[in-house]
Amino acid sequence: MCTISYTATSEIQGLTVAGANPELVKYTSPADAEFLYYGRCRCIDFVPATPDGKPTPALITRAALQLAEIPLLVVDAGAKVKPAIPHLSFGLEPGRNITQENAMDEAVARRAFDYGALLGRQLARMSDMVVIGESIPGGTTTTLAVLEALGVDARFKVSSSMPENPHGLKNGVVESAMGRARVSFGGVSSPFEAVALFGDPMMPSVAGIADGVLASGGRVMLAGGTQMAAVIAILKRIGRPLGGLCIGTTAYVAQDSSSDLAGLVHSVSRQVPVLSCDLHLGESSKPGLQAFAKGFVKEGVGAGGASIAAMLKTRATTSKKLMKAIEKEYETSIEAAQKSKS
Amino acid sequence: MCTISYTATSEIQGLTVAGANPELVKYTSPADAEFLYYGRCRCIDFVPATPDGKPTPALITRAALQLAEIPLLVVDAGAKVKPAIPHLSFGLEPGRNITQENAMDEAVARRAFDYGALLGRQLARMSDMVVIGESIPGGTTTTLAVLEALGVDARFKVSSSMPENPHGLKNGVVESAMGRARVSFGGVSSPFEAVALFGDPMMPSVAGIADGVLASGGRVMLAGGTQMAAVIAILKRIGRPLGGLCIGTTAYVAQDSSSDLAGLVHSVSRQVPVLSCDLHLGESSKPGLQAFAKGFVKEGVGAGGASIAAMLKTRATTSKKLMKAIEKEYETSIEAAQKSKS
Repeated sequence: MCTISYTATSEIQGLTVAGANPELVKYTSPADAEFLYYGRCRCIDFVPATPDGKPTPALITRAALQLAEIPLLVVDAGAKVKPAIPHLSFGLEPGRNITQENAMDEAVARRAFDYGALLGRQLARMSDMVVIGESIPGGTTTTLAVLEALGVDARFKVSSSMPENPHGLKNGVVESAMGRARVSFGGVSSPFEAVALFGDPMMPSVAGIADGVLASGGRVMLAGGTQMAAVIAILKRIGRPLGGLCIGTTAYVAQDSSSDLAGLVHSVSRQVPVLSCDLHLGESSKPGLQAFAKGFVKEGVGAGGASIAAMLKTRATTSKKLMKAIEKEYETSIEAAQKSKS
Repeated sequence: MCTISYTATSEIQGLTVAGANPELVKYTSPADAEFLYYGRCRCIDFVPATPDGKPTPALITRAALQLAEIPLLVVDAGAKVKPAIPHLSFGLEPGRNITQENAMDEAVARRAFDYGALLGRQLARMSDMVVIGESIPGGTTTTLAVLEALGVDARFKVSSSMPENPHGLKNGVVESAMGRARVSFGGVSSPFEAVALFGDPMMPSVAGIADGVLASGGRVMLAGGTQMAAVIAILKRIGRPLGGLCIGTTAYVAQDSSSDLAGLVHSVSRQVPVLSCDLHLGESSKPGLQAFAKGFVKEGVGAGGASIAAMLKTRATTSKKLMKAIEKEYETSIEAAQKSKS
C-alpha cells in the first residue's frame, strides 16, 4: 500500500524539498503514485525531484515491487491533487497548516482510522504481510507536533529529506502550532485529538489500515522513517497490541546522524522492531542515486520497506540485484528525460 | 470486487425497480456497497429494496463473503452518490441517459478500461481468482443497446429485476437511443465507441479489470446476469483470449424464462461458460427471500458469483448452509429494521 496525502504545513518555506519548488509540492505525492504504476508521471510531465535534481525514492519502490512481483494499491488519504491511476479513496480533505488552524476535525481523524481498519481487514484476507508506505511532504514536522503533544520528546529526532536537517525551523513551527492551540508538551492524551490538532490525514489512515490487518492476525510493515512513529503512537495510545508490527526503512534513515529513528520508536513503544536495509546506492555509478547515501532524500514512498519486502518475498532478490534494478529504473526515467530535454 | 455505477437511463419510468422510487435510484449502488461492509447502509437509513419491499441481493453477497472469508474491494465506476466506505475510484462521472445524449466520451470509456487493467494486474498478484460483481440500476437496457449496436441480437434476452420483464419498454428505449445516434443494428464495430454511445461506465471498467487479471494469468468470474454479456463483448471485440473467464450467477437468472443468459453469452462468445447456483431461497421461511425464487430481483451485487466462489473456496459451504446464513443476514438487517419501525 502506498498512502498519498498532503499537509498545508509543507508550504512553510524551508521545511521540505520534496518537490522542486513550493508551488509543485502538491503534485509530489500523486506524481509519486503515478510513477509507481507507469514508470512516469501524468499530473506533471517530469519525475518528482529536489530542486537540484535528486529523484524521488519512488524509483526504488518501483524497482523493488517489480523485481519481486509485489502487488500495489494506492490510498488517497487527502492528497491535494488526485493521481491519474485507480486509487482507494478515503474521502479526505488535505490537512491544514497547523500553525494557523487545526489540521482536521477529530471526527474526520476517527473516520480515517475506521476506513483504514475496514480496508485492513480485507487486505489481511489477501496477504499475510501488508507493507504500508507514505508520501506526504512536510510529514516529519506534523509528526514532531503530534508526538510533543502526546508527551514524547521528538525534538532533534525526526529525519529530513535534506542533509542539513532544519530542526530549528521544525521546532519553531511546532512551538507556534502548540501555542496557537494552547497545548503544552504532553498536554493531549487522546491520539485522535493530537492528530486533529497537529497531525495530517496520513497518520490516522495508515494507523487504521495497520490496525485492521493486525486485528485480523496479519503482519504489518510500516515502510517509512520517523513519520511512522506517529502512527505507532496512535495504535499504542488506543491500547492495541503491537505484536506483528515493525518498521522497515532504508539504512540512510536508520543510520542518519541528524535524526534518531530507533530512539524515537523506542520512546513510543519498546515492542516495535526497526528493520533497515543497505541499498548500496553509494556504490552506484549514477550521481542521482549516490545522493541517497549522502543524506539527500533518504527514504519515502515506502522505498526501504518495499526493498526489504522484495528480499523477503524472493530470496533471489539480493541488495546488489536490487541496486541494478534501481539503476535501470533511473536510466529509463530520469536519464531518458534528461536526454530528451537536451 | 464489487463495481458500483450509474446510468441516467435508469431514470426512465418503469425501466428498473432497483430502488424504492425514482428519486432513490442514485442511492441504490452506494447503499449496496455500504451494506456489504457494514450490514447496514449509511447514505440512506434503510436497506435498498423494491417498492414492495423485496430486499437487495447484497444480502446474499454479504452472507457468502462472510461465510467463506472472501476479501472484498469496492470500485466506484461512476456512482452518482459516493459510498461511505473506502473504495477504489476510477475518477468517472455517472453515465448519461442514452436516449438524450452519448453515455460518455469514447476517451473516458478507454481510460476506464485502462484503469481497470492496471488494477486487474495488481489483483492477479493477490488472488488466483477474481470475482467481479456490479450494481448499476438500468444496466440491462444499456447492455441491450451496446449489443444491438455491435450486431448481437439481444432483444427479449436481457433479464430484469421484475417478474414482468419490460422488454417492450427496453426495446423502445434502445430504438430511441440508436435513432438519436443514427446507428442501426450492427452499425458500430468498435466496442469502445458502442459503450460511449449507448453503454454505461460499469462496462469498460469491469472489462478492464477482467483484462488485467486474465493478461496476468489469473482467472475471472463475472458475477452477474445478462449485463455481463456487454463486458464479454468488449473483450471479444478487442481480440482478447477468453480462456480463464466465466460468468457466475444465480439459478434465478440462469433459468429465467423471460430472458436468455446462456443464449446471449453464446452469441457473443462460444468460449465463456455460465455457472449458476441454486440458493434454495424458495424453501426459505422468509417471504422477502422466497421472492428471489419467484422472479423478483433475481441477481445483482455479485450475489450468484459470490455464492459460487464461497462454495469453491470452502468446501464446507453447502447451498443449505449458505441459505441459513442469508436468512440470518435477513433477520439482522431487514427484520430488525421492520421491528424498530413498528
